[in-house]
Amino acid sequence: MPEFQPDARLAADSHALAELPLCQVRLMNDARFPWLVLLPRRPGVSEVFDLEEGEQQQLWQEATAVGRALKDSFNGDKLNIATLGNMVAQLHVHVIVRHRGDAAWPAPVWGHGQPEAYRPEALKDMHERLLAQLDTLPLATPHPPNG
Amino acid sequence: MPEFQPDARLAADSHALAELPLCQVRLMNDARFPWLVLLPRRPGVSEVFDLEEGEQQQLWQEATAVGRALKDSFNGDKLNIATLGNMVAQLHVHVIVRHRGDAAWPAPVWGHGQPEAYRPEALKDMHERLLAQLDTLPLATPHPPNG
Repeated sequence: MPEFQPDARLAADSHALAELPLCQVRLMNDARFPWLVLLPRRPGVSEVFDLEEGEQQQLWQEATAVGRALKDSFNGDKLNIATLGNMVAQLHVHVIVRHRGDAAWPAPVWGHGQPEAYRPEALKDMHERLLAQLDTLPLATPHPPNG
Repeated sequence: MPEFQPDARLAADSHALAELPLCQVRLMNDARFPWLVLLPRRPGVSEVFDLEEGEQQQLWQEATAVGRALKDSFNGDKLNIATLGNMVAQLHVHVIVRHRGDAAWPAPVWGHGQPEAYRPEALKDMHERLLAQLDTLPLATPHPPNG
């Protein structure tokens, strides 16, 4: 079985934050939205139902728990959870905190305007803030800030 | 506790198809995409994590099972599952079959072009076809075609 590796496009657009029991959690490099992506460490999987049933349940649990922590932390107005995969086949779940009046509100974030990359200091702050949140979830293993 | 009712905007844009153990399944009135919406019959709920844990699990199970059946039936290229709720606060999960080259591909469907309402005959056919698929899922209770 091949080893898990994040898709090259996803890897280029995001930073590894932590490992949950099933998923790698990555921060999308777009400072307009608190936007995480969860990637189950299962090579060759594209649809949720390609996972075993227990893993499907684990995936949704992790996405929901991360989303709840994220929305609380950023005082969000709405949580968006989505698995689309029209561009990147590797199974991944978007977990995005939305605020009324954010750069895309009330539209979905995908394809809306241009991403704004984090500046190095802001990325470091965001990384630490998110790790502190993820640390409240069971079994999160952190990645270093430059992972 | 108030009774469950689909949000007025969702109700206007879709047709009731069936009741699953937790969710009402509705067909979005947009013939460009096989597009269902699942609404947990829980009044006042806006985020997945507002549901009890067992219900969260049930919601994702229903969405995944419906999605799998739908993608098979329509020979889709990709399944999109998403809960956004930026416009309609009532918790609802989109389950959409995507085809390469469909009206929005590879972008998400929301806000992309104008919906194309089903003609009455096409709606009846779609309703029957979807009910036959949902009937393969445990415990689906059908709505009549004009529900």
